[in-house]
Amino acid sequence: MKKTALALTAAVLACAAHAAKPAKSAADVLKDSPAADWRGLDPDNTLLMDLAAGQVIIELAPRFAPAHAANIRALAHGGYWDGLAIVRVQDNFVTQWGDPDGDDAAKARQLPAGAMPKLPAEFSVPLDRVGKAAGFTKLADVDGWAPRAGHAEGFPVAADPKSGRAWLAHCYGMVGAGRGDTVDSSNGTELYVVIGHAPRGLDLNITVVGRVLKGMELLSALPRGTGAMGFYDKPEQRTGIQRVRLLADVPAAERPALQVLKTDSATWQQLLDARRFRGGWYVHSPGHVDICSAGVPTRPIP
Amino acid sequence: MKKTALALTAAVLACAAHAAKPAKSAADVLKDSPAADWRGLDPDNTLLMDLAAGQVIIELAPRFAPAHAANIRALAHGGYWDGLAIVRVQDNFVTQWGDPDGDDAAKARQLPAGAMPKLPAEFSVPLDRVGKAAGFTKLADVDGWAPRAGHAEGFPVAADPKSGRAWLAHCYGMVGAGRGDTVDSSNGTELYVVIGHAPRGLDLNITVVGRVLKGMELLSALPRGTGAMGFYDKPEQRTGIQRVRLLADVPAAERPALQVLKTDSATWQQLLDARRFRGGWYVHSPGHVDICSAGVPTRPIP
Repeated sequence: MKKTALALTAAVLACAAHAAKPAKSAADVLKDSPAADWRGLDPDNTLLMDLAAGQVIIELAPRFAPAHAANIRALAHGGYWDGLAIVRVQDNFVTQWGDPDGDDAAKARQLPAGAMPKLPAEFSVPLDRVGKAAGFTKLADVDGWAPRAGHAEGFPVAADPKSGRAWLAHCYGMVGAGRGDTVDSSNGTELYVVIGHAPRGLDLNITVVGRVLKGMELLSALPRGTGAMGFYDKPEQRTGIQRVRLLADVPAAERPALQVLKTDSATWQQLLDARRFRGGWYVHSPGHVDICSAGVPTRPIP
Repeated sequence: MKKTALALTAAVLACAAHAAKPAKSAADVLKDSPAADWRGLDPDNTLLMDLAAGQVIIELAPRFAPAHAANIRALAHGGYWDGLAIVRVQDNFVTQWGDPDGDDAAKARQLPAGAMPKLPAEFSVPLDRVGKAAGFTKLADVDGWAPRAGHAEGFPVAADPKSGRAWLAHCYGMVGAGRGDTVDSSNGTELYVVIGHAPRGLDLNITVVGRVLKGMELLSALPRGTGAMGFYDKPEQRTGIQRVRLLADVPAAERPALQVLKTDSATWQQLLDARRFRGGWYVHSPGHVDICSAGVPTRPIP
C-alpha cells in the first residue's frame, strides 16, 4: 500500500504534508499565518447539529439570505429540528434533513415562536452588498458558470456585473433551503448540503443559506437512499437528529473552539497560490483554481 | 418534507422527472434515444468488483493508459484483489483499495502470472490518439483547467493543442492508479476513485485508468478514515473485497446487462443541451456545462 500515494486533498490542512509548493507550501502558509487572519465563530450565525455519530457545525450567511438566516435562527432557538431526521441522501448530489411528516398537516412539526411559515426567495443579492464591506476577493481564474467568482466572508460567491447580482455558489459543503415548485416555497425548515461535485446548475434557482464548517463526513458518508431522488424508502433508514442549537443558546463551556480563515486575508491569497502552483509530489501545476476546489480552512483555536 | 425540492441530480436518469427543458428534457432525450446510440460492455475492459454490499462495475480506458489497462486485466484475471480491501476513504477526495500489506515484502500479495511489477507513467497521450477514432467530442463550454475539454468513449477528457497532449480528467467516479513519489511507481495494484468535487489539480500528475459505471454509492458512502490522508487506523475498519473479475472471465449468465451511452452520439449532445438549458423546476439556466458535471449515463439493456 502506497501511503504516499495521492497525497493532496481538498482539505488543505490534511494535504499539507505533500502539497509543498516550490515557494511556499499550503502547510507552511497555514503554519506561518498570523493570528489576525483567523476569526472565531459568530454565535448568532452558527448552528450546532448533534447526531449520534457526532456534531456538525454550520455557518449561516445572513448577507446573502437575511430572511432565511433569521428564520433558521428562530427555528434552532425553538428546537424545531430536535428529534427530526435526515430524510434523503442522493449520491454525488445532496444530503437533506427536515420533518419526515412535513407533508402531513396533522402530524407536521409546529413552527416555534418567531419562525415564519413563508419567506421571500433569496437566490441573489445586489452586487454592491458583496463589496468591500464583505471583503469580497475576486478570483483571477476563469469560472465557466458565472462572469465573476471569488470569496466573501468564507463563502464561495459568484456574480454578474451586468445584472448587478451576486449569489452563493453550490460548492461541496454548501447548505441550502429546499423548495417546492414555486420559488418562494422554502422557509428554512428543510435544509440540504452538497455532498458531491459542485451542482452549479442549482445556482440562482434556490436559496443558499450557509456552509458546513465541520462534520461534513457525518453527512457525506451516509447510506444513499434508494427511493426517488435519494429519499429513504423506510423510516428506519433515516438518521435521527438529536438536536440543532444556535451557538448563542449554547453555554460557553460547550461551544466548539474553532476558528475560520478570513478570506480577505493575505493567508487566503497565499493558499490559493499554493493550489495553483504545486510542488513536492506534484510534477504538474494547473496554474488554476476554482471556487469549489478551494475550501476555506478551519482550525482548533491555537 | 418537500418531495419536489431539489429535483435535479447528477445522475441524469434519476433527475429526469424534474429537469424538463423547454425544448426537450433529459428524460425525454433518453426515452427517445435510438438503440444505436448505446453500446454494451467490453468484456476485455470491464471489471466487476464484488463487495459484501453489492457489485461495482468499472470500465478501463486502454486508449489513455494501455500499459496500466493490460496490467489491471492480468491482475484481475489472476485474482489479485480477491480478499484484499478498501484501505482509505478521504472525504471529498478519494476511496482507495489494494493490499493492506503491500509495504511489507514478506506479507505482500504476490503478482499473478502476466502482471508486471513496474510500468511507465501514463499521465497523457498524444492528442492525435484522441481524435475521430475515439469519437472525441469537444465541449464548447470553457474549462478553467485545460485549453480543451470534452468526452471520448464515455470518458471526460482534457487536452492542450499547444503541447499536443490529451488526458483523462479527475471527475467524480474516475479511477486512477495510486503512485508513490516517483511518477512511474504505479502498477495498477492500488487503485482509487474520485468521490468528491473533481480534484482536477491531480490531472497530469498520475495515471487515470478508467471510471466506475455502476455502484459508486458503494464506494462513496463508506466511513471516512481517521488516519493521515483518510487511511483507516485499524484493520477492522477496512471494507473487504470479495473478488475482482475481468468481465471476459465471467460466465455469460452472470454478466451485468448494462449499456453505456455513446458520447459521439446525437443523444449525448442533446443531453448536454438539457443540462445547459433547464426547464420545469428551474427558473434560471446556466447556459453552461462542465465535463465533470455531465455524467455519461448507463442503463439496463432494454
